[in-house]
Amino acid sequence: MTQRFLKLGAFLSGNGSHGGSWRLPGVAPDAGTSFDLYRHVAQKLEAGKFDALFMNDTVSVPELDPHVLARNPQAVRWDPLTLLPALAVVTRHLGLIATANTTYNEPFTLARRFASLDQLSGGRAGWNLVTSLGGGENYNRDDHVLHAQRYERAEEFFNVITGLWDSWEDDAVVGDKDSGIYLDVDKLHVLNHKGPHFQVKGPLNAPRPPQGYPVLAQAGSSDPGRELAARTADLVFTAAQTLEEAQAFIRDVKGRAAKYGRHPDSLKVLPGVSVITAPTQAEAQAKYDQLQDLLDPAASLKGISNFINIGVDLSAHPLDGPVPLPDVIPETNTHKSRQRLVLDLIRRENPTIRQLFRKLTAGGHRILIGTPETVADDFAAWFHQGGADGFNIMFSHLPGGVDDFVDLVVPELQRRGLFRTEYEGRTLRENLGLARPGNRFADGGKRRA
Amino acid sequence: MTQRFLKLGAFLSGNGSHGGSWRLPGVAPDAGTSFDLYRHVAQKLEAGKFDALFMNDTVSVPELDPHVLARNPQAVRWDPLTLLPALAVVTRHLGLIATANTTYNEPFTLARRFASLDQLSGGRAGWNLVTSLGGGENYNRDDHVLHAQRYERAEEFFNVITGLWDSWEDDAVVGDKDSGIYLDVDKLHVLNHKGPHFQVKGPLNAPRPPQGYPVLAQAGSSDPGRELAARTADLVFTAAQTLEEAQAFIRDVKGRAAKYGRHPDSLKVLPGVSVITAPTQAEAQAKYDQLQDLLDPAASLKGISNFINIGVDLSAHPLDGPVPLPDVIPETNTHKSRQRLVLDLIRRENPTIRQLFRKLTAGGHRILIGTPETVADDFAAWFHQGGADGFNIMFSHLPGGVDDFVDLVVPELQRRGLFRTEYEGRTLRENLGLARPGNRFADGGKRRA
Repeated sequence: MTQRFLKLGAFLSGNGSHGGSWRLPGVAPDAGTSFDLYRHVAQKLEAGKFDALFMNDTVSVPELDPHVLARNPQAVRWDPLTLLPALAVVTRHLGLIATANTTYNEPFTLARRFASLDQLSGGRAGWNLVTSLGGGENYNRDDHVLHAQRYERAEEFFNVITGLWDSWEDDAVVGDKDSGIYLDVDKLHVLNHKGPHFQVKGPLNAPRPPQGYPVLAQAGSSDPGRELAARTADLVFTAAQTLEEAQAFIRDVKGRAAKYGRHPDSLKVLPGVSVITAPTQAEAQAKYDQLQDLLDPAASLKGISNFINIGVDLSAHPLDGPVPLPDVIPETNTHKSRQRLVLDLIRRENPTIRQLFRKLTAGGHRILIGTPETVADDFAAWFHQGGADGFNIMFSHLPGGVDDFVDLVVPELQRRGLFRTEYEGRTLRENLGLARPGNRFADGGKRRA
Repeated sequence: MTQRFLKLGAFLSGNGSHGGSWRLPGVAPDAGTSFDLYRHVAQKLEAGKFDALFMNDTVSVPELDPHVLARNPQAVRWDPLTLLPALAVVTRHLGLIATANTTYNEPFTLARRFASLDQLSGGRAGWNLVTSLGGGENYNRDDHVLHAQRYERAEEFFNVITGLWDSWEDDAVVGDKDSGIYLDVDKLHVLNHKGPHFQVKGPLNAPRPPQGYPVLAQAGSSDPGRELAARTADLVFTAAQTLEEAQAFIRDVKGRAAKYGRHPDSLKVLPGVSVITAPTQAEAQAKYDQLQDLLDPAASLKGISNFINIGVDLSAHPLDGPVPLPDVIPETNTHKSRQRLVLDLIRRENPTIRQLFRKLTAGGHRILIGTPETVADDFAAWFHQGGADGFNIMFSHLPGGVDDFVDLVVPELQRRGLFRTEYEGRTLRENLGLARPGNRFADGGKRRA
């Protein structure tokens, strides 16, 4: 039996998920829009045998308050499906996962982009399916589409896009020069989809992707999000502050998979974690403190208040006072599961605003500050106790956070036999130990075991 | 005064615009979906100092008739906005122009993609704005949107996308580490567009493109197409079988520019031409004949019949008989100007079906078979007599057609002082001799002279 390794994804956002990262000494201030930075990071991740890098995305500038906006480098950012093709050329093994939303895109368009990226990268593409955190105002609407409608559309979007990827069977391109036959038209399947949200005839004007379908990732952890993940996802990203939360999430989402005829191992669950590491605990803590000191508290608290949306502007309350929870928590149209996680955290730990703020500088994901040994201990505990199939590492700052992790933590994980020393396969699916999906028209609609 | 050179664009489509190209000896049969082919071609074009490569696109498989489809390698193809970012990494000077339609895309999405490509390539992106030849069936419709509506939408699309590119002034990203100010919010302009087709608030979540706006190309030659080009285009692609047609087109489209406050030199008109060249005329003719022999006449005639849409299936008539023009030519929803060009050709030359077929294997563009000297003579005549600012070379076969042109014709053009020996500038706009557009919010809405 093949040794079971944990999976590692790299979550990249601007030049670091921490709002102070761009102000660190030695980092070019515009590094978040510099291709050189991303090339370095991608090649370093590949040297560290990461499964994939994963780019987040938004289709709006979420907060126009001048005080917040002036301090938000991620208000201007890369389009993931433009940057990843460029990174495909400068890497050979690393998976390349782009976030793209199902609410303000059309399935034919995304089917083509991901099919082309999969082709270009030799089977290393992944799609992080989201329903978007906003953006209606840029797509002919007054407001963001409501949560329930977004998930209905996402379910149908998945059916259409996979149907388009199945337009041609794997061996439909024959290219027989003698006869002049380029395509075997008996291996063409016209979709003819008509549903509540989409009417798409097909076929796609692209060959079937090398991986059958690009690896499908899903990050929504609300109830409809879990259901969609259980039915469709290969990779599931989630946020969990404690091992118990992570265990409960994994049991739940893998438990839901059975009714869709899927084996629990066909979903890999990767909790997000922000790792700040150095040879000693004191040095690691100093790195984190340096980042924290570069944040503007008022701007950060306003950003966090919008993000968790509990009906309070935390920037208007004393930093060292308690978090003023209102009696009635408003219904939120985005970040449903993140709102719940933060409410649980507040009720569990009763932090001051300052303490809460320090815990939420990775978007609600866990922050782990430690030596390579203590980080590896933590990863091993979660991995062996059913809390994680691996981790999505939220890099607080680039390129330093990636360099530290690959140089310090990866060798320690490898030494303990927790992580690969060579890529096992050629495609992202092969490296993740995931089956290649069959073609619904040719293989009876089953995923191959 | 700087010497006036002709401009050269390279039209790339699959592994050649000629339907027989993939069957040539020595060409990998799946080369049209091979990145290695495109990398070779792009680097060769750059060695030949081409201004830009230009990828065409469609959002459907236009003809599902099995006899035609089986012989159509371009039924499966690259997404241009996925391939061009990859080519940006392996080139340094070449312009990269992607076709994208305004009928089935949203301006916010395309604004981001082209802004990112312009950033990634250091100011070498171009957008070939089309209203699409079809695809409604893949975008929630029973039929393709009608011509007049498509152009109305295109006009508004242009206003929105350029407004989004102007969201941030050129120097809005300040990145001042000391103060923690990343963006100068006084240089933000929220679009707040509300029109008949689009409601888009903005701002774009990307910096202003290095070129201000990517180079805008336009290929529609119908009356609304010419109007749109006169108002918006930097580059105009067109099809002309004779110098007189080209001269009349240039006079017309540049003449229309004045009413939009534009100088005639701010539009560069590039007629398409398919060049088959070799050291001797006999060798060049033999290359072309070899390609022609690789076409299936019935499939090709059916394709041509659809394309020119004059109400006759040419494949059902004798090859050596006259072209049976019906008394009433049907109104066409696509290729309006191409239909007119072909009707003019038939009435002027009264060809047999076989002769017409041989003239239309480059999509209605002129086919020039000659030595480097005769090709250069032809180019010089068109260039000096007001028939062209340069040419969009339709490469019949890849990579051979590109290798031949760069190795044989380019040196001859350079020897005559008709073409550059070094790139003049850093961006595509600079190489084309085009002004950088000002920001409508900051520079009074004027293009800089």
